[in-house]
Amino acid sequence: MGTPVAATVTFEDGTSRCVDDVAQALALGDVARVELLYEYGPDLVPRGPLDPIGMWRYRDLLPLDPGPIAYPLPVGGTPLIAPPGLRRASGCDGLWVKDETRGPTGSNKDRATALVLEQALRQGHETVSCASTGNVAVSLAVGAAAAGKRAVIFVPAEVDDTKLAFMLFAGATVVKVRQGYAAAFRLSREAARAFGWCDRNTGVNPLTVEAKKTVALEIWEQLGRTVPDAVVAPVGDGPTLCGLAKGFRELVACGVAERMPRLIGVQAEGCQPIKRAWEAHASRVEPVQPATIADGIAVGDPISGALALRDVRQSGGGFIAVSDAELLKAMRELAAWAGVLAEPAGAAAYAGLLRALECGLVGRQERVVILVTGTLLKTPRFARSDGRPLEIDADLGELERALAGLGTS
Amino acid sequence: MGTPVAATVTFEDGTSRCVDDVAQALALGDVARVELLYEYGPDLVPRGPLDPIGMWRYRDLLPLDPGPIAYPLPVGGTPLIAPPGLRRASGCDGLWVKDETRGPTGSNKDRATALVLEQALRQGHETVSCASTGNVAVSLAVGAAAAGKRAVIFVPAEVDDTKLAFMLFAGATVVKVRQGYAAAFRLSREAARAFGWCDRNTGVNPLTVEAKKTVALEIWEQLGRTVPDAVVAPVGDGPTLCGLAKGFRELVACGVAERMPRLIGVQAEGCQPIKRAWEAHASRVEPVQPATIADGIAVGDPISGALALRDVRQSGGGFIAVSDAELLKAMRELAAWAGVLAEPAGAAAYAGLLRALECGLVGRQERVVILVTGTLLKTPRFARSDGRPLEIDADLGELERALAGLGTS
Repeated sequence: MGTPVAATVTFEDGTSRCVDDVAQALALGDVARVELLYEYGPDLVPRGPLDPIGMWRYRDLLPLDPGPIAYPLPVGGTPLIAPPGLRRASGCDGLWVKDETRGPTGSNKDRATALVLEQALRQGHETVSCASTGNVAVSLAVGAAAAGKRAVIFVPAEVDDTKLAFMLFAGATVVKVRQGYAAAFRLSREAARAFGWCDRNTGVNPLTVEAKKTVALEIWEQLGRTVPDAVVAPVGDGPTLCGLAKGFRELVACGVAERMPRLIGVQAEGCQPIKRAWEAHASRVEPVQPATIADGIAVGDPISGALALRDVRQSGGGFIAVSDAELLKAMRELAAWAGVLAEPAGAAAYAGLLRALECGLVGRQERVVILVTGTLLKTPRFARSDGRPLEIDADLGELERALAGLGTS
Repeated sequence: MGTPVAATVTFEDGTSRCVDDVAQALALGDVARVELLYEYGPDLVPRGPLDPIGMWRYRDLLPLDPGPIAYPLPVGGTPLIAPPGLRRASGCDGLWVKDETRGPTGSNKDRATALVLEQALRQGHETVSCASTGNVAVSLAVGAAAAGKRAVIFVPAEVDDTKLAFMLFAGATVVKVRQGYAAAFRLSREAARAFGWCDRNTGVNPLTVEAKKTVALEIWEQLGRTVPDAVVAPVGDGPTLCGLAKGFRELVACGVAERMPRLIGVQAEGCQPIKRAWEAHASRVEPVQPATIADGIAVGDPISGALALRDVRQSGGGFIAVSDAELLKAMRELAAWAGVLAEPAGAAAYAGLLRALECGLVGRQERVVILVTGTLLKTPRFARSDGRPLEIDADLGELERALAGLGTS
């Protein structure tokens, strides 16, 4: 149980093959995406009471040897919310919000961080590393602190000051690389190999997809062990969507679900390389220069692009691109009608759902889950609205007149 | 079940009495703190699998009639973390962190918001209101949005811009009162009565303490249905600590726990009216002018001061005051050794624990829980550290030299 028995490797051109030797497959991490396979069966899927809560509940489908979990931060078990206001506003009565903003650092990256650090704790790695400019970096810095490990994080020189402050605050070693993100990524890979560090780079480390698939297992369980009609998720590098796909695929392989949901990937109009490849019926993704406020999905050269194309195709879903204005509107509606605070990339699924409803990719009678991947709390500069406070003296009559002026008293 | 049968009312001078008529007790809300009482017994305490998760698990000890929960945001069920790094750093092997930063808006206020809104949904209130400058205001704005209710929030003119932005972003009606916080509070009370709004003012509405007591019930259950030796919590207005006390007291009343933990209340040195009353053996609290970075506990005239004094006294605990420098240090240590991101008030319990260990108020061999009440993500301006990033060219040799310079390669 919890032991991978084979792997699928998928190359950049979209071709893939199955490899029986897991170690051999993992060695291909630089040129292909590696997905672990298990001996699937209903016994790998938990049943019964929610104990333990969170992602370790699914440990028989994770590459974990027996033994207690050492990573101290509970992760996963996030709410699946039925928001009446958002259902009315969107006209989608079967809408559910999977709220991934409740992790230790407010994003779904915390799942991948947890599994990578659990492995580092078991294998005795003292250092974990990655290249990132955003949520992954903050998540790894905080997770490593919790686990008593050193985090070495490679960032481009133009990294956001607030996110940099969080990384340093948690005690991470941060390395600014003058030549930009791509160079930072390559150096982080090279350093991990040279110094024997545990490499948490998303897409490269198959554990990140393994961890992210637990969100699909939770959705299925939270819906009473049933599969929704569609799941909508933001797509940058790809692993969030590929994780969802793998989770649902494994439920089918285990014989506890009959089908996959349709997966709808949402990209920003200013950074839609996978959406363009989708429209061109290509299996390879051409890099673009990102231009969007949604930094969480501003990935011009996605590492798991071919895999994301394959997963969406197999699910019968599709890709959608949304503008920055639609992202901002979706953030406001999520806050004001569902009480869910999402950053721009975190709101992409809701913006995409509205488009998908319009163009018929999702039907208004369907049961659909949107994945909110990151919190607005970390990026308050996007909490902009047209609302203005009333300003009055402390007098009930003045209050009544001011409220009447709003037409809402 | 879930039906209060009497109430304790406690006046500002610390005197209190039991009132059999609950409605009559509630009518005293302007001049006394009202605590609801139930017909206690082991059947009111849940046993067995964690279903449902979160605060509604304890609904038989909440003033809720039967029927489904309508409030759509899951709240409570927050992690109790055993942080190895922080245990080593503090020398306290039995240290646990109750991480209340995982709520919908990152603070323990989300519990009180949830119960008040559940009542508003059941009683048909269209508007909920409060006076607040901080976490309560953001929590109510977001919670009301989720519940489809109007929030009217009274703030002083000098309210923090970021927090104001979050309130408006969630669609709340925000009323700036020119005469300051005390006037805003009085006007909010007057308006709630005049317009028939549901009043969420902390301390005034007994539901806020009812909701906050669920954190004690969770701690007890998460510790395998046992009571820790001590619980350390920040104290501003008082209801967080009074909620803890009530939760543990009710476990004893139900016959499932043998004793209370010692409660240690932590105030900021720049705002310690309750600590001063404690030292003076007074039962009434004299107001002070707050001067601390910890806005969450910067309450100069605490509404539940007398009650907090009584609860700490009955528990055999004590009060501690910590400086802003100690708060900042505690924030850094929580982040770097436990992976928990706390705002200044949220870190007060850890700062207080360090003092309590020093002065012997808590023993190093004891089992002690610290309550982290609010997230740093919402206040990134406090994420300051001495750490600096390395800045290098994309070259492995240069990386190695830079890391060696840190003495940590």
